Amino acid sequence: MDRVILFGLGSMGFGIGQSLIGAGLTVNGYDLDEGTINRFRDAGGAMEPLEEAIGQARIVIIVVVNAAQTENVLFGHEGIAGRLAENSVVISCATVPPEFARQMEARVAEHGVHYLDAPISGGAKKSAEGKLTIMASGSADAFETATPALDAMAETVFPLGSEAGPGSAMKIVNQLMAGVHIAAAAEAITFGMTQGVLPAQCVEVISQCAGTSWMFENRGPHIVDGDYTPYSAVEIFVKDLGIVSDIARSKRFSTPLAGAALHQFLAASAMGFGLEDDSAVAKVYARNGGLTLPQGET
Amino acid sequence: MDRVILFGLGSMGFGIGQSLIGAGLTVNGYDLDEGTINRFRDAGGAMEPLEEAIGQARIVIIVVVNAAQTENVLFGHEGIAGRLAENSVVISCATVPPEFARQMEARVAEHGVHYLDAPISGGAKKSAEGKLTIMASGSADAFETATPALDAMAETVFPLGSEAGPGSAMKIVNQLMAGVHIAAAAEAITFGMTQGVLPAQCVEVISQCAGTSWMFENRGPHIVDGDYTPYSAVEIFVKDLGIVSDIARSKRFSTPLAGAALHQFLAASAMGFGLEDDSAVAKVYARNGGLTLPQGET
Repeated sequence: MDRVILFGLGSMGFGIGQSLIGAGLTVNGYDLDEGTINRFRDAGGAMEPLEEAIGQARIVIIVVVNAAQTENVLFGHEGIAGRLAENSVVISCATVPPEFARQMEARVAEHGVHYLDAPISGGAKKSAEGKLTIMASGSADAFETATPALDAMAETVFPLGSEAGPGSAMKIVNQLMAGVHIAAAAEAITFGMTQGVLPAQCVEVISQCAGTSWMFENRGPHIVDGDYTPYSAVEIFVKDLGIVSDIARSKRFSTPLAGAALHQFLAASAMGFGLEDDSAVAKVYARNGGLTLPQGET
Repeated sequence: MDRVILFGLGSMGFGIGQSLIGAGLTVNGYDLDEGTINRFRDAGGAMEPLEEAIGQARIVIIVVVNAAQTENVLFGHEGIAGRLAENSVVISCATVPPEFARQMEARVAEHGVHYLDAPISGGAKKSAEGKLTIMASGSADAFETATPALDAMAETVFPLGSEAGPGSAMKIVNQLMAGVHIAAAAEAITFGMTQGVLPAQCVEVISQCAGTSWMFENRGPHIVDGDYTPYSAVEIFVKDLGIVSDIARSKRFSTPLAGAALHQFLAASAMGFGLEDDSAVAKVYARNGGLTLPQGET
């Protein structure tokens, strides 16, 4: 039973598929996009139709965009929850509200299926290298059943608890910081421009000072190069900081920095940059300030 | 002429004095606090009164809190600008508006004195080890005259331009990011608590993920330990993010994250935590959310 069913072959899912194939697992990959499926087949993906594969797999990995898509895979019109083998495990990788993860765990349990709340971090490159970081929580059975896939996908698995919820909670905390840090990087680089500090000089110097962040060092060069190829898009942070905002509102907890960052990403989306790299939030600052970013973007 | 005059023997200034003494320089140190002066004397500081020392030094280092104190040292009631040796250099280390640095450069030039706009980064420990980072700008004469002191104080000197201004501009960009990142760390750790994520677990995991920052890794443990010993106080960021706000307002440039962070530090100050470690901004979030931080702080 070394077969894995993989839903979602976007930049993260495709990389996970490659890691699993590289580790010797049989991987049936599914995606809404026909071209992507063909590319995955060329990369060594298995070819059985879902109906056939589903009973032969003990591991299902869902790497879609959000909670709604995750729920649709499991419980939508053609949802698979009722067709999964008993004692199989669903490894759910999308960034979702912790409460949603708890609900999914309970609902698949009704079908005798385990659930691993397993958001991922690390980007497309680490995904393809099998070096993701996974923030995971779930039952001992869920972890044990998922082990062959986790070993292939991840460099680090943080075990965060014995039920669904804590994995997603940690991921959303990470996304709060990541989103704030990307907006802060854009704010600092453009603020520096108003003071005569060139973006390239800013990234070079601040990267070596106490003001640096992982995101500043990773996304700062995108702004310096004027390259907004979407490694991760503006819309991802509209979504993830939206989850932060939903939780903050329901808990009556004030998150002013995450709130400010959310609205900068919303402004970027409203200006038409939603599918560009998240560092395109710098264009919001540039337009507000009448600045010309590197490569002529204003 | 290997004598240096040093104004300000606080945590950063005292460390700089130790570095200079360690490098074989004669250092006359001055401070408003008598006890601090005695401690500096015990650490090897020179003892001549200012009147006597001032004509024998080619290097004056000013490590005070802000622009007002810097101006007072140079041009106040007992200001030294008119008594400095010709072709000596003033190394100005406080975080100040770039425009202020330009003004000081012009005013000491009237006395035949060079000015190095030289804000520092690195904290008290690196200060004492002679391993500061200095963001410096000024004339070739200013840099050359300052060299013996810079060599003793700094691990890295970024040469940012041939006149005063760019050094302070880069420093204030760094402070924008540092202040936002400290508030973001506090926001993320407390937001995590509302989702059942323990602060210690949060710092351990996020430090290894894309959401991390230098400040998160440095200040996060203070929150986890409930230790608010002021390595750098809340009031420093009330001041430095205030400079960001002043520049933003005068330039009509919107900095929403820095603005939100400023007001969180203001709230911390208003609650009576102004002289605690800047990580005490977490107490603002905790009070707002009815959370109990580690070590019982609410």
